[in-house]
Amino acid sequence: MRRTITGFSNPTVKFLRSLREKKHRKAEGKFLAEGLRLLTDARKSGHLPEMLVMASAREAHPLLDALETDVLAAGGEVIEMGADLLAKVTGKDNPQAVAGVYTEFGTGLAALDRSSAKIWLVAQALRDPGNLGTMLRTGDAVGAGGLILIDDCADPFSVEAVRASMGAVFTQSIAKARWEEFLPWLRGGGNGHGGQLVAASLRDAVDYRGAPYAAPCFLLVGNESRGLPEDYEAECDLRVTMPMKGRADSLNAAVAAAVLAYEALAVLG
Amino acid sequence: MRRTITGFSNPTVKFLRSLREKKHRKAEGKFLAEGLRLLTDARKSGHLPEMLVMASAREAHPLLDALETDVLAAGGEVIEMGADLLAKVTGKDNPQAVAGVYTEFGTGLAALDRSSAKIWLVAQALRDPGNLGTMLRTGDAVGAGGLILIDDCADPFSVEAVRASMGAVFTQSIAKARWEEFLPWLRGGGNGHGGQLVAASLRDAVDYRGAPYAAPCFLLVGNESRGLPEDYEAECDLRVTMPMKGRADSLNAAVAAAVLAYEALAVLG
Repeated sequence: MRRTITGFSNPTVKFLRSLREKKHRKAEGKFLAEGLRLLTDARKSGHLPEMLVMASAREAHPLLDALETDVLAAGGEVIEMGADLLAKVTGKDNPQAVAGVYTEFGTGLAALDRSSAKIWLVAQALRDPGNLGTMLRTGDAVGAGGLILIDDCADPFSVEAVRASMGAVFTQSIAKARWEEFLPWLRGGGNGHGGQLVAASLRDAVDYRGAPYAAPCFLLVGNESRGLPEDYEAECDLRVTMPMKGRADSLNAAVAAAVLAYEALAVLG
Repeated sequence: MRRTITGFSNPTVKFLRSLREKKHRKAEGKFLAEGLRLLTDARKSGHLPEMLVMASAREAHPLLDALETDVLAAGGEVIEMGADLLAKVTGKDNPQAVAGVYTEFGTGLAALDRSSAKIWLVAQALRDPGNLGTMLRTGDAVGAGGLILIDDCADPFSVEAVRASMGAVFTQSIAKARWEEFLPWLRGGGNGHGGQLVAASLRDAVDYRGAPYAAPCFLLVGNESRGLPEDYEAECDLRVTMPMKGRADSLNAAVAAAVLAYEALAVLG
């Protein structure tokens, strides 16, 4: 179905704007992705928005036409609105903007096939959605299976995380779990070799370079300010440390995950 | 000097708020850093704010006392204000907040001593201040000499960049230059070996792993959307590529810089 919306008070505009807030995303089970490149990447990964939103006055673009055709064929909605309204939805003053509404994916540990990839990223209590999105993007690049969110993390379906993921939110598996659920799942799977849990750590750690990474390798990074709780580190099968030659004693969480992930990739091949 | 400010219309409050905008930072030659940890790191690096701002009602803290003593001894100002005013200045609703006003550092190529470090980071037209701050933080960690900003980059002295740098803005050298200035500087220095310019590239590139990095090694990353201009890449002495196993063809710019920097560190020792 194709509709044109003209008023700020239109319920669809309100619905779209509400998806910028976590509580509304969770209540609806939906999230927003923005930009033609991101929506096209999603389409290539087999994800179509159930609602496609674009400016009434816009330049034609073959990728946008393709999106529109597919969304309509799949029974989705295509919504046109003025540039002023669209700016309210996307928070951007860009009349070429396009946005899509997607259904959130399943996020349980049970759905993960740990044998499908050598590397998995695990974030514990990460608060910055940009870091989560960047970790998804890095995960895609190293061929990771997905991102597991432990304890209270930012929302990987927030607009900021989806944008930073550069489409990897559509290609990486995402699971959420408490630590108390994650550990038994990890230890119980794969006929006794559920996976190797690796933490970047300053305590009792070996050099990250050429460390004995083993697949499936779960790379765990902790909260931006506090790092990993000590008892979480103690549970890890391997603690590795990266050179820190300056004043600081830690890296940005997404950077640490990436340096570790590329090292694990080099070792695991 | 120590003062207490009570009104929103006070010129000092207006001045502090103005430093959130680039044009005012440049006009004043000053920038804002926030948080006791950051200000303490700056102090340890020999940087004191000329103005220290804190809440009138606050818990005593030995690090804050030390800061205050040093600022007053150096002839700086200490300003107290109500939590509501402070929140206007810092943009954060945190009565424990503290902020400092610093003078911007020299940012010319001429001031850089390229023989002082094996690794230098170079950003070309990076638009995200968080990426610049993260690169500064990574530079500190790998013992880099500093960050060189080519063409129109975000402001490394913005509140976001300073925050993301976790204090590295005070320890890393920062220089700005047009490409047309940077290249002659690079090629002309060090008695004919001015430095090796390395780009992450998909064209005509060797595997980044164990590549022949040579000190001083200048690691160049390009704009978040467009990457490096082709003619910039062509000027590089070494083009390296990182495995990209997923759908995406690039990493986050700060992540790419970090993975390269840690690899160069491993090779250069």
